[in-house]
Amino acid sequence: MLTDIEIAQQAKMLPITKIGEQLGLTEDDLELYGKYKAKIAAEAEQRFSTKPDGKLVLVTAINPTPAGEGKTTTSVGLGEAMCKMGKKAVLALREPSLGPVFGIKGGAAGGGYAQVVPMEDINLHFTGDMHAITAANNLLCALIDNHLQQGNELGIDQRRILFKRCLDMNDRALRYVNVGLGGKVNGIPREDGFQITVASEIMAILCLANDIEDLKQRLSNILVAYRYDNTPVYARDLQAQGAMTALLKDAIKPNLVQTLENTPAIMHGGPFANIAHGCNSVQATKLAMKLGDYAITEAGFGSDLGAEKFFDIKCRYAGLSPDCVVIVATVRALKYNGGVPKTELTTENVAAVEAGIVNLKAHIENMHKYGVPVVVAINQFGTDTDAELKVISDCCEQLGCEFALSEVFAKGGEGGLDLAEKVIKACEKPANFKPLYDLDLTINEKIETVAREIYGADGVAVTPQAQKAIDEITALGFGKLPICVAKTQYSLSDDASKLGRPSGFTITIRDVKVSAGAGFVVVYTGNIMTMPGLPKKPAALSIDVVDGQITGLF
Amino acid sequence: MLTDIEIAQQAKMLPITKIGEQLGLTEDDLELYGKYKAKIAAEAEQRFSTKPDGKLVLVTAINPTPAGEGKTTTSVGLGEAMCKMGKKAVLALREPSLGPVFGIKGGAAGGGYAQVVPMEDINLHFTGDMHAITAANNLLCALIDNHLQQGNELGIDQRRILFKRCLDMNDRALRYVNVGLGGKVNGIPREDGFQITVASEIMAILCLANDIEDLKQRLSNILVAYRYDNTPVYARDLQAQGAMTALLKDAIKPNLVQTLENTPAIMHGGPFANIAHGCNSVQATKLAMKLGDYAITEAGFGSDLGAEKFFDIKCRYAGLSPDCVVIVATVRALKYNGGVPKTELTTENVAAVEAGIVNLKAHIENMHKYGVPVVVAINQFGTDTDAELKVISDCCEQLGCEFALSEVFAKGGEGGLDLAEKVIKACEKPANFKPLYDLDLTINEKIETVAREIYGADGVAVTPQAQKAIDEITALGFGKLPICVAKTQYSLSDDASKLGRPSGFTITIRDVKVSAGAGFVVVYTGNIMTMPGLPKKPAALSIDVVDGQITGLF
Repeated sequence: MLTDIEIAQQAKMLPITKIGEQLGLTEDDLELYGKYKAKIAAEAEQRFSTKPDGKLVLVTAINPTPAGEGKTTTSVGLGEAMCKMGKKAVLALREPSLGPVFGIKGGAAGGGYAQVVPMEDINLHFTGDMHAITAANNLLCALIDNHLQQGNELGIDQRRILFKRCLDMNDRALRYVNVGLGGKVNGIPREDGFQITVASEIMAILCLANDIEDLKQRLSNILVAYRYDNTPVYARDLQAQGAMTALLKDAIKPNLVQTLENTPAIMHGGPFANIAHGCNSVQATKLAMKLGDYAITEAGFGSDLGAEKFFDIKCRYAGLSPDCVVIVATVRALKYNGGVPKTELTTENVAAVEAGIVNLKAHIENMHKYGVPVVVAINQFGTDTDAELKVISDCCEQLGCEFALSEVFAKGGEGGLDLAEKVIKACEKPANFKPLYDLDLTINEKIETVAREIYGADGVAVTPQAQKAIDEITALGFGKLPICVAKTQYSLSDDASKLGRPSGFTITIRDVKVSAGAGFVVVYTGNIMTMPGLPKKPAALSIDVVDGQITGLF
Repeated sequence: MLTDIEIAQQAKMLPITKIGEQLGLTEDDLELYGKYKAKIAAEAEQRFSTKPDGKLVLVTAINPTPAGEGKTTTSVGLGEAMCKMGKKAVLALREPSLGPVFGIKGGAAGGGYAQVVPMEDINLHFTGDMHAITAANNLLCALIDNHLQQGNELGIDQRRILFKRCLDMNDRALRYVNVGLGGKVNGIPREDGFQITVASEIMAILCLANDIEDLKQRLSNILVAYRYDNTPVYARDLQAQGAMTALLKDAIKPNLVQTLENTPAIMHGGPFANIAHGCNSVQATKLAMKLGDYAITEAGFGSDLGAEKFFDIKCRYAGLSPDCVVIVATVRALKYNGGVPKTELTTENVAAVEAGIVNLKAHIENMHKYGVPVVVAINQFGTDTDAELKVISDCCEQLGCEFALSEVFAKGGEGGLDLAEKVIKACEKPANFKPLYDLDLTINEKIETVAREIYGADGVAVTPQAQKAIDEITALGFGKLPICVAKTQYSLSDDASKLGRPSGFTITIRDVKVSAGAGFVVVYTGNIMTMPGLPKKPAALSIDVVDGQITGLF
């Protein structure tokens, strides 16, 4: 089989103006970035604002193997399949980060015959959104350090600066740095660190902002530091929000691209799914619902992280009401959850699937708690056997949800027709969406609710440090915000080694921080790495440009 | 009078496809970035390769006041004036850096009625070239630190890593940093620093590369570090050049924009004029010569820095033969060079102009040494008096060069007709361009030649540290490269306080480094700041977005 990039480079793309035309977008609505990428002007969103919304489908997953189970691939294939069936489907996806491209992961625009193209551009600079976020983030940091240097009128405590620098790069050497060294003219020495750009609060803000005014408002609300007297300093105290908004004025516009089969895809934003909410932008999702009869979107990691935040943060803020949830599972991941080591996932093992199916069950039951119909999509591999698949279909039948096999990786939209049919059917069912918890609950109560209802924990242990942070954040007036739990994606619990459907455990809360601009309280159940490193043999070493064509990007 | 941004926002821009059409570029030749910016595809360059070259005009300046004397403004106005006269003129300019926009300088796309537009876009992210350079630079850094972390097979001495990280931001706190802190999993601790992106060697490489293959070759040749045994480590030893080239595959394509009067402007690249050569890209200049009958380009700072490097580095490498040099001077700067304090430059002072005119003389005589006809352009201010201007015109007559008044800031192309006429006339003269020195000279001899012939020094003092570096660089085989002197722009000497035409001084060489990828030896005459800081009241604080429109950018 061809590699992803080889398939992508053979794609017969339509000019993006054609894709726009099919959606009712005029040439004036599109700001072209080359022939196959465009930003959608704010005017277009306004023009479609009175049109009734299409159905909203969320694609999520069970707890994954380290390789991931193909959410984006399944989303892309589902969209393509719907279009094949004559339905007007529009994808609303996350845009990939540059850093991992050079690390271990390779590209992040789907895979096989279910990809978004132009794949190289999307995985490299795309339309510059990540770079704009990096610049806005680092402008705020430069203004903080300049403020210290120029006399520190606000009385910022350089030991309590919360807002970190960022780069869209996997670079572990930047995790912990000392800045401002070199003497008097070169700044005030202090400890700092870099995050990868997608972990920046600016990314979360961009994704939750309704428009550019809302963006500016949220930027102004970023909690950047504390003063020596422990009072908070916000970005607005540094008058940073105007220039930051200027840097983001194009980045806030959704990007239009297409799949290998010319299905329209709006790719916009892509925050972490642990310290942030893990969904593409509100603007993109809303626009996809206006432009299509079906908007297909995704959320990061498994449903315990991505879908929970999609529902409790994004849908709540944006007033969205999803019509169907697709849970992507693989036989491989179920075996993994059933205790099979990574190296033995390709041999038939019905008992292991039966042991691991409890994980899928938990995710189905969790999604039902939000009142949204569920379709389970099995992302098929050649090594899956009928007996293994039957365990899964039986489970779905038992829980009253739809079940479909997906072969979109190998066959594109053709391989997703069964899934598309089930999703369309599910969307006809009455959905009765409601978030899991009430915002009026205390931060501790909200954590407790998510831990018990979604993770299956017996309870929550809050460290004294975390409780102090909760009290401080509540005192600042942020107690009514939704919570955003940073937790391992490999387990429903906070222990990556507890696979399947763990029980009899408590969740330990180690720290709590507020993303006051984005509008959520981040709850840390452990150390979350917000700056990845490169592996022994980085993917970068294989990437090249030969005869003007990029090679080795996978 | 309106501010620059107000004038720019009132511009009647043509679609960039129209501008391209006038130059013979088809829609396929252009990769659009919105309606008013485009990259020019490599295919277009190839198609025009057999067309005879237009005349090449370099715009340079005398030693400036700290505010600068308006080289870009004059270049833009000259191009507009030529077009008004029915000539086919194409500008080849540097693209601005994002960092200074938020500091003190504001925009850098000309001024008044001689600007390149869309001004906000050009001054913010433009087509992403700076961000691509930042990413390529920092990927190389991440690969270096990852190599250390993963066992350091090459034996890189972490105390002798030469290649620094970069950001396109004015951020003094990043000048001197410690990275790799935080324990074993977070890298090898070492001293590092960030430069502003335009000071990155990658920027110089992008500007000197003939095409993408040449780019990759030059990237592979970057000297990044020394081993414990003092042998050199190049980027190719880390296999970094392929992925870096992939990151730069769009950035290497020249950008097409237009002036307020719809004169075509190719803006591409913009390296520092001290530690680098200070000119826009070779590709852009060559393309402007193919597309226009007159290509107007510029070089950074005064002619002692920018023009010298334009001739001795860029023209030599690119095989260019300039037809005319415009030296921009202001009455203000001549008074400044005549010893008048910054606060008193607006009152008439003929004696001061007479005292400062020696600076202009030196620049004219220096340019004549390259065998290229000279036109002096006085960028006029309302406070200039006839008596002051007469001192300058007399000087020009005496030295046998053309003299023209320019009012392009206030009047656009209309204000540059006299200048355009003189430049066209000068271009008809036989030019007999030759670089100043032979590459076969030793590094010391080359420094000596530039110091005596251009700066007017009696000689050169090389510190032991610098001589050691010269010997090491020569031993590595880089002795035949052209030199790139990093020197203050305010004086012909290496002492910023020596204005006018200093004599009886020696130039002190404090350090020497090789930019082996770019292909020149950087000669340091003092400490050169490669990461600017923000002032007490950064321009960022006044920048805002109001009703979707950027304000406060000047």
